[in-house]
Amino acid sequence: MPEFVVTFQPEGKRVKVKDDQTILDAARIAGIDLISVCGGAGTCGKCKVILKESSSISEISNKERDLLSKEEINSGIRLACQTKIRNHVVIRVPEYSRTGKQRLQIEGIETSIKADPTVRKIYLELSEPTLDDLRSDVDRINEGIRTRLKTNNLKIGLEVLNDLSEITRNCEWKFTVVLWNGEIISLEPGDTRRHLFGYAVDIGTTKLAGYLVDLNSAKVIAAGSLLNPQIPYGEDVISRLNHPERNMLHEIVIQGINYILDDLMEKTGILREEIYEMVGVGNTVMHHLFLNLNPKYLGRAPYPPVIRNSLAIDSGQVGINIHPQGKIFFLPVIAGFVGADTVSVILASEIYKRKEISLALDIGTNTEVVLGNQDKMLTCSCASGPAFEGAHIKHGMRAASGAIEKISIDPETRKISFSTIDGDPPIGICGSGMIDILAEMLIAGIVDVKGRFNKAYNSPRVRIGQDGIELVVVPAEESGTQKDITFSQKDVRQILLAKAAMNTGITILMKHFNLTKDDIKKLFIAGAFGSHINEKSARTIGLLPEVDLNIVEPIGNAAGTGARMCLVSREAKTIVESISERVTYVELATDPDFQSAFLNANFLPNSRLEDYPETSQLLKRYGNFPERLPPRF
Amino acid sequence: MPEFVVTFQPEGKRVKVKDDQTILDAARIAGIDLISVCGGAGTCGKCKVILKESSSISEISNKERDLLSKEEINSGIRLACQTKIRNHVVIRVPEYSRTGKQRLQIEGIETSIKADPTVRKIYLELSEPTLDDLRSDVDRINEGIRTRLKTNNLKIGLEVLNDLSEITRNCEWKFTVVLWNGEIISLEPGDTRRHLFGYAVDIGTTKLAGYLVDLNSAKVIAAGSLLNPQIPYGEDVISRLNHPERNMLHEIVIQGINYILDDLMEKTGILREEIYEMVGVGNTVMHHLFLNLNPKYLGRAPYPPVIRNSLAIDSGQVGINIHPQGKIFFLPVIAGFVGADTVSVILASEIYKRKEISLALDIGTNTEVVLGNQDKMLTCSCASGPAFEGAHIKHGMRAASGAIEKISIDPETRKISFSTIDGDPPIGICGSGMIDILAEMLIAGIVDVKGRFNKAYNSPRVRIGQDGIELVVVPAEESGTQKDITFSQKDVRQILLAKAAMNTGITILMKHFNLTKDDIKKLFIAGAFGSHINEKSARTIGLLPEVDLNIVEPIGNAAGTGARMCLVSREAKTIVESISERVTYVELATDPDFQSAFLNANFLPNSRLEDYPETSQLLKRYGNFPERLPPRF
Repeated sequence: MPEFVVTFQPEGKRVKVKDDQTILDAARIAGIDLISVCGGAGTCGKCKVILKESSSISEISNKERDLLSKEEINSGIRLACQTKIRNHVVIRVPEYSRTGKQRLQIEGIETSIKADPTVRKIYLELSEPTLDDLRSDVDRINEGIRTRLKTNNLKIGLEVLNDLSEITRNCEWKFTVVLWNGEIISLEPGDTRRHLFGYAVDIGTTKLAGYLVDLNSAKVIAAGSLLNPQIPYGEDVISRLNHPERNMLHEIVIQGINYILDDLMEKTGILREEIYEMVGVGNTVMHHLFLNLNPKYLGRAPYPPVIRNSLAIDSGQVGINIHPQGKIFFLPVIAGFVGADTVSVILASEIYKRKEISLALDIGTNTEVVLGNQDKMLTCSCASGPAFEGAHIKHGMRAASGAIEKISIDPETRKISFSTIDGDPPIGICGSGMIDILAEMLIAGIVDVKGRFNKAYNSPRVRIGQDGIELVVVPAEESGTQKDITFSQKDVRQILLAKAAMNTGITILMKHFNLTKDDIKKLFIAGAFGSHINEKSARTIGLLPEVDLNIVEPIGNAAGTGARMCLVSREAKTIVESISERVTYVELATDPDFQSAFLNANFLPNSRLEDYPETSQLLKRYGNFPERLPPRF
Repeated sequence: MPEFVVTFQPEGKRVKVKDDQTILDAARIAGIDLISVCGGAGTCGKCKVILKESSSISEISNKERDLLSKEEINSGIRLACQTKIRNHVVIRVPEYSRTGKQRLQIEGIETSIKADPTVRKIYLELSEPTLDDLRSDVDRINEGIRTRLKTNNLKIGLEVLNDLSEITRNCEWKFTVVLWNGEIISLEPGDTRRHLFGYAVDIGTTKLAGYLVDLNSAKVIAAGSLLNPQIPYGEDVISRLNHPERNMLHEIVIQGINYILDDLMEKTGILREEIYEMVGVGNTVMHHLFLNLNPKYLGRAPYPPVIRNSLAIDSGQVGINIHPQGKIFFLPVIAGFVGADTVSVILASEIYKRKEISLALDIGTNTEVVLGNQDKMLTCSCASGPAFEGAHIKHGMRAASGAIEKISIDPETRKISFSTIDGDPPIGICGSGMIDILAEMLIAGIVDVKGRFNKAYNSPRVRIGQDGIELVVVPAEESGTQKDITFSQKDVRQILLAKAAMNTGITILMKHFNLTKDDIKKLFIAGAFGSHINEKSARTIGLLPEVDLNIVEPIGNAAGTGARMCLVSREAKTIVESISERVTYVELATDPDFQSAFLNANFLPNSRLEDYPETSQLLKRYGNFPERLPPRF
């Protein structure tokens, strides 16, 4: 099979690829930070690269014709995921197609929990067998451990037994025993107590995040992330669970998790044999695919998961490259559409032990909502879609350098101000920026409460573009892409739909609890972009109920936090099990009030304007309160 | 690679073999019942076959020159294990080289124990998930089981979970759950409760015995055996544990156990998927090799085993072809040279719960001795060697058709009478026959108390043969081989050594207990040939202490019995664990009285003749009591 040399500019990195591999494949091999929101599915149009010799690659595809402008095509721009390499080629990756210092949501709330990992090490110095002391090797070790710990005879697997007699004698009976939940999983010559690591993994539909944790200090040593390599087989969980090649989806997510792990090990010098436990967390579809459970019935009413409880398995059973006798703990799930990530949110936010009522949102492709306290907890799942991650939004992008993350429009001067991540020239709009824009457009009167552009709004920044009426957020001369950055009627519609989905879930849970917004004493926002959201803007557009902003607390990547907590604490493992048992799942689709709540939520902030007095006040102040109140469903 | 057709006569069976395979290999493939005591090592000389065209096989080997007479070589007789096939060949297998209806010690003592197998099946008919009943599949099943059994949530492995959702729905939630010790190991559509089987295996140094057991009735359905395929790599445990290719020894014993299983499944029509548990038993070296534990230190003082406790593993961990999620339970051992087979003897004989003192012997290549009662139990191991199985005895053979199993010599008329297994013409002498011969030769005065042939004994049956002085037990004209069957001075020496080894162990244990033979109220004899032994003869030669013959009880293959008991009874599994903890191992070699006891035991019955009043009486009656008492050590 022919091999071609691909050179990436300006780095000058060269890699060899096989015939038929794409430029995106080559970029992954070369470690080039090319953006790929859709993971190579050819739907996001973000992985633009520039070629001089188009003869070295496959012909332009229909997807490229849809996603690229004529000017782009003429200037040699192609989509990396759509172009198969046919010869040696030199490729330039423009700044706007790079993830740059992409903001990885590593930090999550750290809740005070006693560090007491399931994995522990005991160093022993034992006397060797003599004619007066004929004990078996395992009896000798068990009795040695009993001088330190109250235990019964510990379980010990064949793999450890196989060469136990050689190991113990080669180190003259001075060795370290590695224990995991009443089982001896390894025996190591000498004193290895300093080397005790674990791996926490958050398996998101879009992104995998891995954390290497020192279990002696309970501190994260290194973290890494990767787009979920399942994305090309379906952007959302529904298409993944229906995919016929379940084994393949299972294998590639394992590969992705191992890929991050390899990278973290290389960076830190920590060895595979020093990492004894992985804790995994993810929504129920990710849970099933990670474990290779049949996810088919997660897609059919009433969407029951195969198993709800937490699971502990051997690393070898799924092929995770930690210690060969290492263990994998996967947090319990709640229901088919409320997974271990939501259990993590409840764990990290401590809703499960608070007296006052809390509301928690984990915003992602699906947004999970939790409402409750120590006595009662309800949860539901909202199909919010990937809009906030930049998908289906013309100038949407992930939270990376150059993304507009904050924006304001002066209702009087009509001046638009913004700030970007890392202060780079703007190249697109990330999730928090989109919420800001919509809120500011509403207050400024650029859109009305139905989300429609106000044709009477008089500004050179509002014009008719390719996708209909649009706001020019940044003109070409100020943009990092030398092109206008716009926000169109179509984009507004996408954001409105996403916020309506979330708000409906909140409304239905509050109804089940018979609560008003004033009963909510804490509002936790989890998720990759939840901690960068402008809470006031989110409240203005009705994504959040109109609560006191002081009760809002971003808790970051709570899924990762929960995984890390379970990694460093045996107690946390018990707590998550009880959370999973106690939370009641509410199925939105069959709720009699779902339709009306959703229709009401399709207004800005909501057709029930009386529930949004502050936003109403703002609209009135700038003369944009609707003359006719919106219909109520 | 060329293939040759080998035809076995008189059956006319044909098989194809590859270049360089031996006739013994071919016989195994063809299922010909060719004797092979040494398993192909070329040391026993039993696998004689007759060829007409010697050009089709390899040249005569040195081993064959040693083991075959010139007449045999001239008449085309060869050893099947030494002859490699070079062309198509026709081979005749004479009657005397056939195992015939070889007596397989299947039956052992059956002790009354409540049938309560670890594996159990529960048939469930559950309601399917609905929008009002969103439980996960596993919650649904666990709650279904709890309507029948008090259990916590049961453990359930990934293999069962993988397709659990399809299985439950395909059978409309009517299925059978297979439980093993708090774990769900299988889920089967419909009601399969009638199909519940287990496999008990006794892994002997020489022989593997397998029992297919119906766990509903606790009855053995079929049994089979095979020479231990490790024999070519060492006849005794010492050479096996020192063998450099431990993985290979592990693999071939697994193959052997699977081979018996395949045969039992074929005979009974029972499927692999219906056999959920294997229970294994064997001495400590067999235990280590079966589990692939390093046996090296079993051969070095103080001979500690890697693990003494019982072990439960997954069938897949060692590749036993029962149900893929089936379990293997291996009984605990006691010490390096007292294994799970001895634990079985104690279980089956119930020594562990008797008030009175019992003595138990498990006679084999190593003979284990147990002495004790409910309060205290001692054990030791004696290197008795394979003489009783026919090895190193010129006309020795295993207990098969045509073997002389009983013999008497009239001290007055000097007439020799005998009986053979199945009444076939005599072709050799099996273990029980050898003990008879030695006892009868002693009483008749053919040998003296030192085991030396009495040159003054006047009989045409005593003569000088190839191996020195010998007794013609059966003249050629009465024998099935058309050759004299003899018992020589060399053979006497072999038997004397074997019995001295056993008797020494008994003496040392009695010393540790401070007992005389009259304190022994029960004497159990286990082992493949223990149940066919003439107890009086064994007592006469001093193999047993001179106890009342009424207290002697043969318990057959107690190792197999113990394995079957543990297979059908959870309680038995608990009992063996406590037996292993309670028994004290006595190391003979370092006992200060070992040398003297062994030297004393090298007389017939013993140099301490006062402990053998009845034998002394018999010797006196026929004038063979020694004029000078033997020396005492």
